[in-house]
Amino acid sequence: MSDKSEKSNKLKARLPRGLADRGPAEIAATREMIEKIRAVYELYGFEPVETPAIEYTDALGKFLPDQDRPNEGVFSFLDDDEQWLSLRYDLTAPLARYVAENFDTLPKPYRSYRVGNVFRNEKPGPGRFRQFMQFDADTVGSSSPAADAELCMMAADAMEALGIPRGSYVVKIWNRKCLDGVREASGAPIEKTLQVLRAVDKKDRVGLVGVQELLAKGRRDESGDFTKGAELSVAANNFITYSLTPMGVGYSTDQLFPHEVLRTADTAPRKPFEIGEFRSRIMAGLGGRAFPIDLEAGLIELTQIQELVRRAGYTDRIIIDETVVRGLEYYTGPVFEVDLTFPITNDDGKPVRFGSVSAGGRYDGLVSRFRGEPVPATGFSIGVSRLLAALQHLGKVEARAEAGPVVVTVFDKDRIADYQQMVASLRNAGIRAELYLGSGKFGPQMKYADKRNAPCVVIRGSDEKAKGEVTIKDLIVGAELAKLEKGREEHLQKQAEAQRAVPEAQLVEAVRAVLARHKLGPR
Amino acid sequence: MSDKSEKSNKLKARLPRGLADRGPAEIAATREMIEKIRAVYELYGFEPVETPAIEYTDALGKFLPDQDRPNEGVFSFLDDDEQWLSLRYDLTAPLARYVAENFDTLPKPYRSYRVGNVFRNEKPGPGRFRQFMQFDADTVGSSSPAADAELCMMAADAMEALGIPRGSYVVKIWNRKCLDGVREASGAPIEKTLQVLRAVDKKDRVGLVGVQELLAKGRRDESGDFTKGAELSVAANNFITYSLTPMGVGYSTDQLFPHEVLRTADTAPRKPFEIGEFRSRIMAGLGGRAFPIDLEAGLIELTQIQELVRRAGYTDRIIIDETVVRGLEYYTGPVFEVDLTFPITNDDGKPVRFGSVSAGGRYDGLVSRFRGEPVPATGFSIGVSRLLAALQHLGKVEARAEAGPVVVTVFDKDRIADYQQMVASLRNAGIRAELYLGSGKFGPQMKYADKRNAPCVVIRGSDEKAKGEVTIKDLIVGAELAKLEKGREEHLQKQAEAQRAVPEAQLVEAVRAVLARHKLGPR
Repeated sequence: MSDKSEKSNKLKARLPRGLADRGPAEIAATREMIEKIRAVYELYGFEPVETPAIEYTDALGKFLPDQDRPNEGVFSFLDDDEQWLSLRYDLTAPLARYVAENFDTLPKPYRSYRVGNVFRNEKPGPGRFRQFMQFDADTVGSSSPAADAELCMMAADAMEALGIPRGSYVVKIWNRKCLDGVREASGAPIEKTLQVLRAVDKKDRVGLVGVQELLAKGRRDESGDFTKGAELSVAANNFITYSLTPMGVGYSTDQLFPHEVLRTADTAPRKPFEIGEFRSRIMAGLGGRAFPIDLEAGLIELTQIQELVRRAGYTDRIIIDETVVRGLEYYTGPVFEVDLTFPITNDDGKPVRFGSVSAGGRYDGLVSRFRGEPVPATGFSIGVSRLLAALQHLGKVEARAEAGPVVVTVFDKDRIADYQQMVASLRNAGIRAELYLGSGKFGPQMKYADKRNAPCVVIRGSDEKAKGEVTIKDLIVGAELAKLEKGREEHLQKQAEAQRAVPEAQLVEAVRAVLARHKLGPR
Repeated sequence: MSDKSEKSNKLKARLPRGLADRGPAEIAATREMIEKIRAVYELYGFEPVETPAIEYTDALGKFLPDQDRPNEGVFSFLDDDEQWLSLRYDLTAPLARYVAENFDTLPKPYRSYRVGNVFRNEKPGPGRFRQFMQFDADTVGSSSPAADAELCMMAADAMEALGIPRGSYVVKIWNRKCLDGVREASGAPIEKTLQVLRAVDKKDRVGLVGVQELLAKGRRDESGDFTKGAELSVAANNFITYSLTPMGVGYSTDQLFPHEVLRTADTAPRKPFEIGEFRSRIMAGLGGRAFPIDLEAGLIELTQIQELVRRAGYTDRIIIDETVVRGLEYYTGPVFEVDLTFPITNDDGKPVRFGSVSAGGRYDGLVSRFRGEPVPATGFSIGVSRLLAALQHLGKVEARAEAGPVVVTVFDKDRIADYQQMVASLRNAGIRAELYLGSGKFGPQMKYADKRNAPCVVIRGSDEKAKGEVTIKDLIVGAELAKLEKGREEHLQKQAEAQRAVPEAQLVEAVRAVLARHKLGPR
């Protein structure tokens, strides 16, 4: 059939790197998860909207997480009319386009949610894919911090709906205006903003000492790689570091270098963030200079959010955290993330917190680009696969493969219509059932049924046909039977259960009995 | 705020042609439809699988419907490693790649289904999009006509599950082997195969006379456009046309030209296809030459499918139709389509049959390309938007917008936490509710509630606050009230219903009463 030259010419079946197929268990778990989140969002009055995977490149903008390679990281192609099209790399930029395009007909504020695949043309790595699913919710047209607070509460409610225990997740909020204000107050020049942002963003990973190094000359990590620093003045570095120091650690800025002090502070038990204490630190550092307007505005917003959170009874789940930055450059106000706090083992075998499964913030500039007028907006995104991995880790998702269909075996190919009728009678009773459609004899058919995870097979060979019977073979009992000692009472009983001949007319009833025995039942 | 130069610089918010956004009603209707189809497929033992939107271009092959432009019609881009990637243009080619890649671990035969977006880089037109959703089911690894028959029955069951009345849909089957055989028997050269296939494919649209013209010199349509014909001999043309003549029309092939005879035959009441009569016609036309092997094989398969269909009781819904061709070149055996037979009005205001919503067939060569060994396969695809349009036409899909959330209005921005708490108490009772987050006064808030399709709004102004009350305004009754004559008893009663003040503690109860009045209730 296939000689060697033909074989070597044949096409290789493989996926491009960073792309993955999904099987039944993952699909079912994802669907269940999405439905639970959707129910929460609907309860909050959010309505669904979907946009296509392809947009004009200019409509997506250059708001990529990795600003070192602007406009790289996106799959793009030239259209017939010489305009560039791109696959969306998130669901926020397309939403901004959608709202701007339908501005006059949409209710404002406009609350909406959407789930869909996004594409990143990046170097894939462990857990990093070039196509992955996001689940976003956004409120466009409200500048009120109540909109941000609502999203944080909705995120918390979603975690609860998924069965993640309280205490195992936390929603952390900070404000870009505060970070900008701290940078300004520190005296660090405005062109260092992005570098400051990135250094602070790494605090969870590198510690406060690491942030200090990244704000100074740079930092060498354990692998020996060197990241160049922002080269701020010692004063500016101290100022920023001090603003990030855990509450209750009362040293003054000139104590911050050398590192010794910080090492202690870093491991000190964390106290809840206090807006008042934070403000006092900044005031002390300013030494009489004016309090930055941005910082003041940011703190007022955080105070409002904190009050809403307190009144709604979410204080134990939604906290202020001055290290929340989020990588995206387009955020303009409150930024937030949902962290899972339970430990998992990392690649090096060390226990680490599971970390962020969702993040978002206010992006007042994104819709405005199209409208030429201010359109405030805020939203957040759930990484679907990452959250699913968390749920699997917590055992909140069915890991066991679902029971397969009942398999009706084929003994006489000329009577396939008879077998087909048996299958139809099972299906009509609401029982998942299928006819063996391969060309194998009994052995391969049983192997097939095993692979399909069938609870039982239906057999109608010449013996059965002569007697007007069918045999039902219970594969689950059969598997148990193989482990038992022969001749014992239990073995004999199981043997009777494992295989049973019944009159043809009782086929459905007998299969139902097998399903009931294993608590499977019709769906 | 926005001066003129800024306005003219702003980005235009628009979608590339052939792409569309989807709103809540369409999303909900699509989800409901997909769930119903999915339940049928699961009952048949099919399991879900999903592949990514991006594949290696060579893995997708050139199996595009429009063979005039091979490899055009696909969105492609070059990867970092100089390999071409493409967006999938259907779900069949990726399935073939998936099965070939996972051949050893999959059960065989392998029944699976999948739903997802596909992309065509074609000139869009009315109802033609560059991204659209398909819902496919396939059986790989079985060469049995029972696999094809099963798919046809499953398609019929899906139509029933969607509420399409029996008689309003029909599954039509033919066989590529028969069409090839007829072409061979007619004496038309093998290189004319594709042209013959396309001419026959157009029979529904252009009639038998039109097919004859397309097999001869060509055909000019009503708009004046000319399609070049296959330029077959009169004998070959007659042979093929005769094979397509309705059953019971008993003229001989030399009567077929001129057209007069066919005009009559074309409008004659259609009789069910008879394999026997068809065979006799071919025999007569062959005049002693050998019956083509392909044709014989195809007719045997159709006979087997017909018997399975009959025994399963689907004769009224699954019929043999010698004009079913389907555009895709990769089909190798049975081909089938689901036609909706009820009339709709076309763009010219004329009544036409709704037509095909689903199609498929056997494609034994597609997986083999990767494996170097034969892997038979058969499957079919539902055009999701097209089927949804049909269901909307039949009134099987909720057209009315769903009731929106209860809107809690805001009178005193300093007390937003109070309003937020009212919203939370409603949500905790399972009632969709939201806080007005805009900056508008009462008028805009009521307009917003209208736009959100809110059943009622909750008001707590200074009056209510002083009395410890909230006012519930029933917007549905309010709308009815506006149409009634004032002062009448009904008007007075409605007036009492339209607005009601209750103690704060009775908020949830009072809102529940409004929802119950309109049979909305918590979800």
